[in-house]
Amino acid sequence: MTNHNTICAISTSPGTGAVAMIRLSGTDAVSITDKIFRPKKKGKTLKTEKANTLHYGSVTDKHNVLVDDVVIALFRAPHSFTGEDIVEITCHGALYIQQRILQLLTENGAQLAKPGEFTQRAFLNGKMDLSQAEAVADLIAASSKAAHSLALNQMKGGITSEIKTLRKKLLDFTSLVELELDFGEEDVEFASRDSLLQLTENTLQLISKLTDSFRYGNAIKNGIPVAIVGDTNVGKSTLLNLLLQEDRAIVSEIAGTTRDSIEDVMVIEGIQFRFIDTAGIRATADTVESIGIKRAYKKIEQAEIVLVMLDASAHFNDTIKFLTHLSGHLSEKFAAIIVNKIDIAAQAVVDELKSLGEATGFPTLLISAGSHLNIDQLNQFLINSAHKFEGSDSDVILTNMRHYEAFMKAGEALERVKSGLQNDISGDFLSQDIRECLHYLGEITGEISTDEVLGNIFKNFCIGK
Amino acid sequence: MTNHNTICAISTSPGTGAVAMIRLSGTDAVSITDKIFRPKKKGKTLKTEKANTLHYGSVTDKHNVLVDDVVIALFRAPHSFTGEDIVEITCHGALYIQQRILQLLTENGAQLAKPGEFTQRAFLNGKMDLSQAEAVADLIAASSKAAHSLALNQMKGGITSEIKTLRKKLLDFTSLVELELDFGEEDVEFASRDSLLQLTENTLQLISKLTDSFRYGNAIKNGIPVAIVGDTNVGKSTLLNLLLQEDRAIVSEIAGTTRDSIEDVMVIEGIQFRFIDTAGIRATADTVESIGIKRAYKKIEQAEIVLVMLDASAHFNDTIKFLTHLSGHLSEKFAAIIVNKIDIAAQAVVDELKSLGEATGFPTLLISAGSHLNIDQLNQFLINSAHKFEGSDSDVILTNMRHYEAFMKAGEALERVKSGLQNDISGDFLSQDIRECLHYLGEITGEISTDEVLGNIFKNFCIGK
Repeated sequence: MTNHNTICAISTSPGTGAVAMIRLSGTDAVSITDKIFRPKKKGKTLKTEKANTLHYGSVTDKHNVLVDDVVIALFRAPHSFTGEDIVEITCHGALYIQQRILQLLTENGAQLAKPGEFTQRAFLNGKMDLSQAEAVADLIAASSKAAHSLALNQMKGGITSEIKTLRKKLLDFTSLVELELDFGEEDVEFASRDSLLQLTENTLQLISKLTDSFRYGNAIKNGIPVAIVGDTNVGKSTLLNLLLQEDRAIVSEIAGTTRDSIEDVMVIEGIQFRFIDTAGIRATADTVESIGIKRAYKKIEQAEIVLVMLDASAHFNDTIKFLTHLSGHLSEKFAAIIVNKIDIAAQAVVDELKSLGEATGFPTLLISAGSHLNIDQLNQFLINSAHKFEGSDSDVILTNMRHYEAFMKAGEALERVKSGLQNDISGDFLSQDIRECLHYLGEITGEISTDEVLGNIFKNFCIGK
Repeated sequence: MTNHNTICAISTSPGTGAVAMIRLSGTDAVSITDKIFRPKKKGKTLKTEKANTLHYGSVTDKHNVLVDDVVIALFRAPHSFTGEDIVEITCHGALYIQQRILQLLTENGAQLAKPGEFTQRAFLNGKMDLSQAEAVADLIAASSKAAHSLALNQMKGGITSEIKTLRKKLLDFTSLVELELDFGEEDVEFASRDSLLQLTENTLQLISKLTDSFRYGNAIKNGIPVAIVGDTNVGKSTLLNLLLQEDRAIVSEIAGTTRDSIEDVMVIEGIQFRFIDTAGIRATADTVESIGIKRAYKKIEQAEIVLVMLDASAHFNDTIKFLTHLSGHLSEKFAAIIVNKIDIAAQAVVDELKSLGEATGFPTLLISAGSHLNIDQLNQFLINSAHKFEGSDSDVILTNMRHYEAFMKAGEALERVKSGLQNDISGDFLSQDIRECLHYLGEITGEISTDEVLGNIFKNFCIGK
């Protein structure tokens, strides 16, 4: 299955840095590098050097013009990331130098790597299964502690071991059933149907636990969706800016971090929250049944956590009606009633809103976004909600849509097995459904894969990985 | 002089990449890393490993929670970039991981490196002189082949060897003069004043050659300044966009290259050109002596290359006057007369402008920026001008303002030596001026340096270098 072309790419972040790293992988990685590398120790070539060693020297072009002083890291098959020979060239971080070295490598026979091609080779060479390969991309993209931890667990084979357990059980199952088929008309029953039913149900439970964890896993990976619902002047933007700004101060400790692409995402205590665009909703009597409130319901549907904001400084005739309407939609959510502007409101109004809030059964927090009062309590509510949301007692949490879909299909096939068993259908039909289930499970780890599936997975990787 | 603190920094470009590299340098680099690194080979520590080796394993926090799988590159003093023990940790390129590892290192006793601190240590530990250290920053910033080549030459000690030659000659000189002083009133003359005058003049010639090269070196480093002078509708913007766009297509071959900060800079055949903002200048009879034309003169002064553009499709009553006025200011420049819009102009007009252009003595090019006619000729003119501009027969070209100023001051001191010799002044005055010259030369290589000078130099480095 190995592709013997030697590939190369810049593996460090694009742009100028102190240093940059260019990586080659393939059977000719060492010999191609030897053509452009002049070791400091005269008379040496990389070809004769041991694996896992470092070599100082310079890269020169074919006219012997110096391009840069570099350090070469040498890895040899099969003890490398890809399972092939790997050369890593660490050069000065100028774009010009990175480009020039890449050019020299391609002139000497290396191919520019496609996105994720190093990881794809690691998969094809059996260094990791497909779900582990996918975890590499998730790991690189992880921007919170929780997402990082899920990706790392998956990369370490967390999901693989669960699937192996499932597959082993199912293989035992189908072997026995298929053994019966070999005996044709003899009507033997090696596999106790009761035990099989039990096994199917246990397996379905496990699949169901995994697919249930996807809602959490997906939220962790992309940020737990939070909706802030309330009137237009209630202070939603002030609160959001406050939360995001506090987070930004933390993030900007790292040089070069940009928040451009994660404008409404923030990380608190390692958990990422994603704020759903929450345009103001007027909660007056006239419109409480109107488009505005319907829009609020829709946002609530998309969210896992809902913050219902009330303004203690403003008129609140319809607050009871507003809260009653909303409450029906919050039953499966982690919700809190946030009474804002307590610093400029009359105490009587604050108290009244507090009891209205508490009457809903949801926690009620008294804050001032403008004066930064009790924002810690709000953060704590978000954190606690996230931890409760986690809920799942599975060690493995699904974060990948592809895995989720495969598990769903595997589950459907098993459901057919279950009802087949209950209806006493013949072994060959049972076997067919179990084989289908095994197929979908195999797709997750890549034991069963097509070029199309692989293409779709790796095209989303960055180049150089 | 060594600072025994151990420093750490992310050395690759800021942002997310396939991989990133965190670098430690200092006496505790290995022991600090050992606290967070679990090698795959059980029972091993980096402490007992050989220099220039690679080690696969994982980074964990104090609760033994996995942070990432990493590869460690181990370098030992004095055979490293800084001359100290260096550990390079290559991890997955997520910002979260980079930040977390950096945090673990600082928790275990490493200090965050200041800008350029690795290179500063290399200088302080005698791994390179100051001008070589400065070249490291230039090398990383180099965005054209020519700038890259100058920086590389300087990093390899190009300027140092010239200065060593100078200093040696001057030291011989001053030793003889100071020997005379030891003999007090005996009126001996060990140093032939004629030979000394000759030596001073030769040295001044060498300094002058180097300082002359700064104009070129600086232009190469920052882009050779080009002014396009002409009427507002003559097609300057079209031409500029065309030139920049062609270049942009080349640059954008590298992923992640952004041109934001180099809007009016382009690289042709490895040489960088920088276009001076050239607002339109009306060259009519009414204004030919006015503010417009004075502004043009000012731009011409700043430029090394001047393109005087004429519009062959428009009325050109005052072209002769315009060209005559300009010509006087172009004598020390590489200038060309560019007749634009030849595709939509009458042939008679094109011919007439061509002979007017040629009458100035400068090359005259017939082009159409709109229809991309003869743009190659224009590029060739820019390239040829750049090569002629180079001119200097010195192997070493000054690119650094600090070096330029030190050479200028060294030259001034030597001029006093020369006139002192001509006026037969006493040896102690001669010696004083020579010592001053030696001081300024020493500042370039860092043989003489203050914390303030070092601070000013290294603060402009990136962190991690």
